[in-house]
Amino acid sequence: MVTQTDVFNNIAKAPLFAGVSSSDLKSLLSGCVIHEYASGVEVIHLQRTYDGFYFIYNGAIKLYFLSKNGEEESAGSISSGNTFGEENIFMTDPLPVYGRTKQRTTLVYISRESMLTLLRQSPILSMQMMGLLSQRLYLMTRELESVCTLSAHERVMHYFLTEITNNMSVDSSLHLKETKAEVASSLHLTPETFSRVMHSLEDEGLISVDGKKIHIYDEQKLN
Amino acid sequence: MVTQTDVFNNIAKAPLFAGVSSSDLKSLLSGCVIHEYASGVEVIHLQRTYDGFYFIYNGAIKLYFLSKNGEEESAGSISSGNTFGEENIFMTDPLPVYGRTKQRTTLVYISRESMLTLLRQSPILSMQMMGLLSQRLYLMTRELESVCTLSAHERVMHYFLTEITNNMSVDSSLHLKETKAEVASSLHLTPETFSRVMHSLEDEGLISVDGKKIHIYDEQKLN
Repeated sequence: MVTQTDVFNNIAKAPLFAGVSSSDLKSLLSGCVIHEYASGVEVIHLQRTYDGFYFIYNGAIKLYFLSKNGEEESAGSISSGNTFGEENIFMTDPLPVYGRTKQRTTLVYISRESMLTLLRQSPILSMQMMGLLSQRLYLMTRELESVCTLSAHERVMHYFLTEITNNMSVDSSLHLKETKAEVASSLHLTPETFSRVMHSLEDEGLISVDGKKIHIYDEQKLN
Repeated sequence: MVTQTDVFNNIAKAPLFAGVSSSDLKSLLSGCVIHEYASGVEVIHLQRTYDGFYFIYNGAIKLYFLSKNGEEESAGSISSGNTFGEENIFMTDPLPVYGRTKQRTTLVYISRESMLTLLRQSPILSMQMMGLLSQRLYLMTRELESVCTLSAHERVMHYFLTEITNNMSVDSSLHLKETKAEVASSLHLTPETFSRVMHSLEDEGLISVDGKKIHIYDEQKLN
C-alpha cells in the first residue's frame, strides 16, 4: 500500500517540482488521492471531466485516440515519475485521449484547486509548468508534422534509425521492444501498411527481418 | 509607420496581457522590434533560432510544415491580435513550422529576456501564459486526433458541418472562404483526394457544388 510519505519522497524528484519547498509540496499533496490499478484498466476517459491531473507513482499508461469504428490510434505513453493532464488545471475540455494502464500502476490525483493555489504563490513552479507545457506542445507539433509530411516508408525508416541511435547499437541491428502492431500504431500506420513497408525494405536489400530482430544493411540509404 | 504607442494600445487588448499593468507592459515593449512585411514573405523559418516571440499587430500568417520533397502541409494560421511562438521563451528548439505572411503584415518581436523578467514578477501574466499554452496543446492534440482517426470522407463532412454551424447558415449552404487547394491542405488532404471526396458526396446526393458554394441536402446523413 502506497502512503502519502512515499508519494512525497517520489514526487519531489519530478522535474516539474524541482526547487519547490517541502512545506509547499506537503500542502499540495495533503488532499491528493492515491489509486492503485491492475494492468489493462482504462483510467483516462474522454467522457469524464477532470478537475485535476495525475502523477504516475509507478507503472505506465498507454494513451490513445479512438476512431468512430472503435480503432485505437496511439497517442504516446507516460511512464512513472511523470505527470499527465496538467492542462486540465487551466481548461474545462479534457484532451481527446483515452489512457489504459500497461501494467500494475499507481496514480496520484492532485486537485486543480490545490495546484492553482501553489502556482499562485510559487514563481519557480509556474516557470517549470510553462516549460513543461511548452515541451508538450513541441512534441505534439513534431508528431503532427511527422504524420503530415512523412510517407509510410519514411516513418518506418526514421523509426529504425532513431532506435539504433538511441540504443547505441554497434552492429546496426535492433530488437523491436513492442509487438509489430504496437510499433505500427505508434507510427500511426495500420499493421498491414507496416508489414508492407518492412517487406519492401527487405526486397530492396536495405534490411533483414528475423522475428523481432531487424538488421540494417545500409544506414546511409535508409536516411 | 507603426509606432510603439500603437503597439502598446493594441497589445493591451490581447487576452494574454489582460490585467497586466500599463507600466509592466511598457517595460516589456521598450525593447521590442517592429517589422513590416509585404504579402508572401517567409517570416518564420525552421533553420533560424528564436530568442523571443511574435505579436501580430495586423495582417495574418499561414503556418505550414514542409515535406522532404518541398510540399507544404498546413499547420494552421494566426491572425492579428494574437501572439505566436511563446514556447520559444522556454525552449531552444523552435517548433518545426514555417510561416509566411498571407497579406501585408506587421509583426512585433518581443525578446525572451524581457518576457521572462515580466513573467517572474507578474503572477497574472504567468497564469494567462499557462492558460494559453494549455489551449495550444489542446488544439494541436485535437488536430493530431483528427488526422489519425478520421477518414478523408469524415474530415470533409466534419469541415462542412463545422462551417455551417460557425456561420449560422440558415439554408444549409456555405461558401468556401479559401481556394479548394487551401481547404484541402487545412484538412491535411491532397487536392486530388479532396476533389474525389466532393464528387463522391455529390454522387451520393448529400451535397451539391456550384463553384465555391456548397449546398448540404442532409445534415443528419453527413454527421
